[in-house]
Amino acid sequence: MEALQTTERTRVRRLPQRAAYDRDTIYAILDTAFVCHVGIVDSGHAVVIPTAYARVGDAVVLHGSTKNRILTAIIDGAEACLTVTHVDGFVMARSAFHHSINYRSVVLYGRGEAIVGEQAKDAALAAFMERIHPGRWNAVRPPTAQELKATAVVRIPIVEASAKLRTGGPIDDPEDLALDVWAGVIPLALTRGTPIRDAGA
Amino acid sequence: MEALQTTERTRVRRLPQRAAYDRDTIYAILDTAFVCHVGIVDSGHAVVIPTAYARVGDAVVLHGSTKNRILTAIIDGAEACLTVTHVDGFVMARSAFHHSINYRSVVLYGRGEAIVGEQAKDAALAAFMERIHPGRWNAVRPPTAQELKATAVVRIPIVEASAKLRTGGPIDDPEDLALDVWAGVIPLALTRGTPIRDAGA
Repeated sequence: MEALQTTERTRVRRLPQRAAYDRDTIYAILDTAFVCHVGIVDSGHAVVIPTAYARVGDAVVLHGSTKNRILTAIIDGAEACLTVTHVDGFVMARSAFHHSINYRSVVLYGRGEAIVGEQAKDAALAAFMERIHPGRWNAVRPPTAQELKATAVVRIPIVEASAKLRTGGPIDDPEDLALDVWAGVIPLALTRGTPIRDAGA
Repeated sequence: MEALQTTERTRVRRLPQRAAYDRDTIYAILDTAFVCHVGIVDSGHAVVIPTAYARVGDAVVLHGSTKNRILTAIIDGAEACLTVTHVDGFVMARSAFHHSINYRSVVLYGRGEAIVGEQAKDAALAAFMERIHPGRWNAVRPPTAQELKATAVVRIPIVEASAKLRTGGPIDDPEDLALDVWAGVIPLALTRGTPIRDAGA
């Protein structure tokens, strides 16, 4: 897929060799997480809130209560900075200085648009759930008109975005390689445990 | 420990029963993660970047290159919104609407101060590493004066902060409990894999 055009703020300046601007890389990062951190400016202050998201086509979809402060602000025109981060490992170097973290992140800037109307909301929420829990939408009770009314759904097109990644082992100074210190990577991953069935009423 | 005084923006309005303002809860959340998302306002736009952090005493400590844009902005007086999120599980309800995510998050607003001077930086970085990799600081090659010079260290006091948590199973509508749908929680946790030793040169 094509690369996104960089802008002044999406061009990665620090360690540019870690940057990527192609949709393949960006979508791969977005499609394997489901919680992002959304920042907006509220009365001049930055506010950063975690929320679930899903990539649907060339956009990221968010949803929540119509009373949700961040969603309301985005619907009212506030620009968002939406950041997704996978933490992949502790990088243990032989010096304190070269310790690092392996990660894959995407930073997306954009304004959103509300998805309105029962059918459009329902379809967007179905696509959202299909991304996170494939096949489940058809198994559960679908949203009622009332529930759809209480839900704000927002899409932010993926136009201005960049990815940044660190992979691999520590990059030690040559003179440190002989030190008697364990060095390497401790992999990290968000893993699923054994499902816990709900007892019901 | 005492509860933090809430402010207009730290008081949780949506689902206030999920909020906590006491230092015990806030510190427990901060002390079991190590990557936060820091937001600042840059030229009127929200910018959200992931970075490692550690709680040291009654402050959160960040560090990075002296060329790091976010750190530089904070040192220059920008207010930060620092958010930490643990994703603890998928909450699978019997209706689409009641699906949720179990999480523990902290939102901290504050201005930072640069930690300056070789000794103070070294001590702060030692405390930082002790939090994330207990015992390792004494095993690795300590920072040189040059490395300390290239590292910006910032502390943001924990004064204006709140926690928000969701735990437990789905909260289904009573009339949905009889539906033949698997419901419950799929636990999620960031877990460590088998360490991969670095081959060296």
